[in-house]
Amino acid sequence: MERLLIEGGTVLTMAGPEAVYADGAVLVEDGRIVYAGPRRGAPEVKGARRLDATGQIVMPGIVNTHCHAAMTLLRGYADDMRLMEWLQTKIWPAEAKMTAEDVYWGTALAAYEMLSGGITTFLDMYFPADPVARAIQDTGIRGIVARGIIAVGGPSEALSRLEESREAFHRWNGKANGRITFMVGPHAPYTCPPDTLVACAELADELGIGIHIHLSETAGEVEEARRQWGKTPIRHVYDLGLMRGRHVVAAHCVHATDDDIAILAETGTGVCHCPVSNLKLASGRTPVSKMRRQGVAVGFGTDGASSENMLHILGSEMRIGAIQAKELEGDPAVFTAYDAVSMATIEAARVLGMDAEIGSLEPGKRADIVLIDTERPHLTPNHDLYGLIAYSALPSDVTTTIVDGQIVYERGRLMRMDGREIMARAREAAARIVKP
Amino acid sequence: MERLLIEGGTVLTMAGPEAVYADGAVLVEDGRIVYAGPRRGAPEVKGARRLDATGQIVMPGIVNTHCHAAMTLLRGYADDMRLMEWLQTKIWPAEAKMTAEDVYWGTALAAYEMLSGGITTFLDMYFPADPVARAIQDTGIRGIVARGIIAVGGPSEALSRLEESREAFHRWNGKANGRITFMVGPHAPYTCPPDTLVACAELADELGIGIHIHLSETAGEVEEARRQWGKTPIRHVYDLGLMRGRHVVAAHCVHATDDDIAILAETGTGVCHCPVSNLKLASGRTPVSKMRRQGVAVGFGTDGASSENMLHILGSEMRIGAIQAKELEGDPAVFTAYDAVSMATIEAARVLGMDAEIGSLEPGKRADIVLIDTERPHLTPNHDLYGLIAYSALPSDVTTTIVDGQIVYERGRLMRMDGREIMARAREAAARIVKP
Repeated sequence: MERLLIEGGTVLTMAGPEAVYADGAVLVEDGRIVYAGPRRGAPEVKGARRLDATGQIVMPGIVNTHCHAAMTLLRGYADDMRLMEWLQTKIWPAEAKMTAEDVYWGTALAAYEMLSGGITTFLDMYFPADPVARAIQDTGIRGIVARGIIAVGGPSEALSRLEESREAFHRWNGKANGRITFMVGPHAPYTCPPDTLVACAELADELGIGIHIHLSETAGEVEEARRQWGKTPIRHVYDLGLMRGRHVVAAHCVHATDDDIAILAETGTGVCHCPVSNLKLASGRTPVSKMRRQGVAVGFGTDGASSENMLHILGSEMRIGAIQAKELEGDPAVFTAYDAVSMATIEAARVLGMDAEIGSLEPGKRADIVLIDTERPHLTPNHDLYGLIAYSALPSDVTTTIVDGQIVYERGRLMRMDGREIMARAREAAARIVKP
Repeated sequence: MERLLIEGGTVLTMAGPEAVYADGAVLVEDGRIVYAGPRRGAPEVKGARRLDATGQIVMPGIVNTHCHAAMTLLRGYADDMRLMEWLQTKIWPAEAKMTAEDVYWGTALAAYEMLSGGITTFLDMYFPADPVARAIQDTGIRGIVARGIIAVGGPSEALSRLEESREAFHRWNGKANGRITFMVGPHAPYTCPPDTLVACAELADELGIGIHIHLSETAGEVEEARRQWGKTPIRHVYDLGLMRGRHVVAAHCVHATDDDIAILAETGTGVCHCPVSNLKLASGRTPVSKMRRQGVAVGFGTDGASSENMLHILGSEMRIGAIQAKELEGDPAVFTAYDAVSMATIEAARVLGMDAEIGSLEPGKRADIVLIDTERPHLTPNHDLYGLIAYSALPSDVTTTIVDGQIVYERGRLMRMDGREIMARAREAAARIVKP
């Protein structure tokens, strides 16, 4: 049996606001947490590997609910442009030149970056599925692969994407000790006609998995949906039956109406809140507190590196999302530091339907754990732990990232791959795909 | 003569969008830049200390236009509260217990933090002035001291604050090789009656310095000004004559009207834009692009660590300010990465009236220089330098901070003081002042 004992740090379990242990310990056996609490109450263990966390915060791995990982290759390529011009003249032509190998290196770069900032799980929508799964396997991160399905080219395009999703599922699902799982990934109602959406739901049921989709990201998209179907994208997808009988994870929902929010709540649909991307693309401001008051689970997502430019939630979505939620309702008390940390961990796990497995440090869960060094000027003094994490901590404060009980990142070093090689390969690929 | 030659990095001068040199060099003599350009064109020098910047960006030091540095001691002490409750039950009682020694350590902690993230100059409003100046001297940062003047206690309170400002000026102005300078610091129109504001202007003229003041931070403040004087705070200060004949630096201006913006433009008043603080306190969103289109110089400011929680502009105000400006006008193209970098460097220097001395890497200016390591996953690949700095760079990417030609921070280490001692002293002070 493989045992890891993390001891001496402040263990912040996210099993509730008060479940914090100043001189704590976490015991891991074969990739699962068996104890998280005060050090003096920890079970006696022999032969465990010991990790000294003195002066550090020990918290659950951060969960990124929405990403297009391989878009790291296009980071900073076309900033400051309007959406359609950006897609048509820059992003789509570059993506058309991406090979499966490029997607592998781009996803590996994303995983390296995410692990370095404490993200241990991400939900990815990109294509093809194979290199994404391979990069998850090789880097050591936990990932959910949703092969992006766009069916603007007609029914045969949709069918081939569905078939590829099915094959990738059977090849990879549950691999890497369960770190790789799947969702069906219809891109959006404006890129998937109703019959494709229904076919995606059927595939999800066949495979026993959930659905990941973009909904109501921009005002223009909602307007177009009203024109075309006489309803919002969320109502449209609901009426097609997608949200009943299976778990749906909806990215953005920036322009969700009160009726939409009621639908999300009723169906237990999880929402990926990507405040940085939404601001940078001028898409709008998500009514995040309103959703949460109605019982909708909301987690932070980075979106792709073309619109967020860094795949970090610590120091990014967590703080920006928090302060934006305050300003949006004109009340600094409406959204707290605890809310922010929750939306990056346990609530994000709920969004993905994975809260039985990850999102908090509790016995029985997978050991996805992050250590944060507080001996830094910007983390001094320490009046409040949640405030420190939500408002002051930076990705670079993460010293150690553990996934499934394994240390996969430590003080600048990705443990299972050569980080410098990943960066070099990504640079080569990036230079090639943007060449005119 | 003391010479420093920085060579091999990408020199981003901020003398204009195109003034970037891929294999560049910066030569410093006795604290001033004598050359910044391509390495092959650099003058021959003997006996210079050489700094290898290969793989790094060499850029001007970041300028923080608005800070209450010693409030680091209250970082995270009272997050998520409404403004008046926050001030009355938390901040003011704690501040009342702060000694001059506490202010010294709190300011030193702030300087350590700022230097670690590439900030080389800050404008501070706090009290008393003496320990602030001493911390600037000892840490090696460049600072402008504006002793906060609040005159709610009546004319004698105002007089004693003015006298203290005068004395501190005479004791410290120009010290530390010119790193310490002064402004007169009336806190705000709502805490300084008209005669105090006029007395501040007279003192500024007597000393030949500018004025730093908070203006139109909250909607409530503007409403109260309209009730009391029948005009906005900015118009009120203008009508009192403060903005004519001397340089004024106005913090926030969140609720500036079109008429107010015309006043700011006409008088050359500099604006400190503190987007993180303004969001966190739910104060509102500053019409930053509108101001800049009217010719107002706007620079980023952190505000104090009670409302921003980290004193970093890189990875914080720079990116949040940029994406917020886009969303505010519904157009991703309205505010560019270059705008963001400019508002953190040369335009911020203009805000402070110091652009002849700092803000860009140009011959004749003080050598305030930052080195940023780009060999990081979140800075890979590098399609656009300004985008990389504005949207992807973190404070922790700063390897070396140079003020006045001297290396004052290098890879985690504050060079002139013991960073661990600063943190320990700050923790002690913080624990004492918040004790009930």
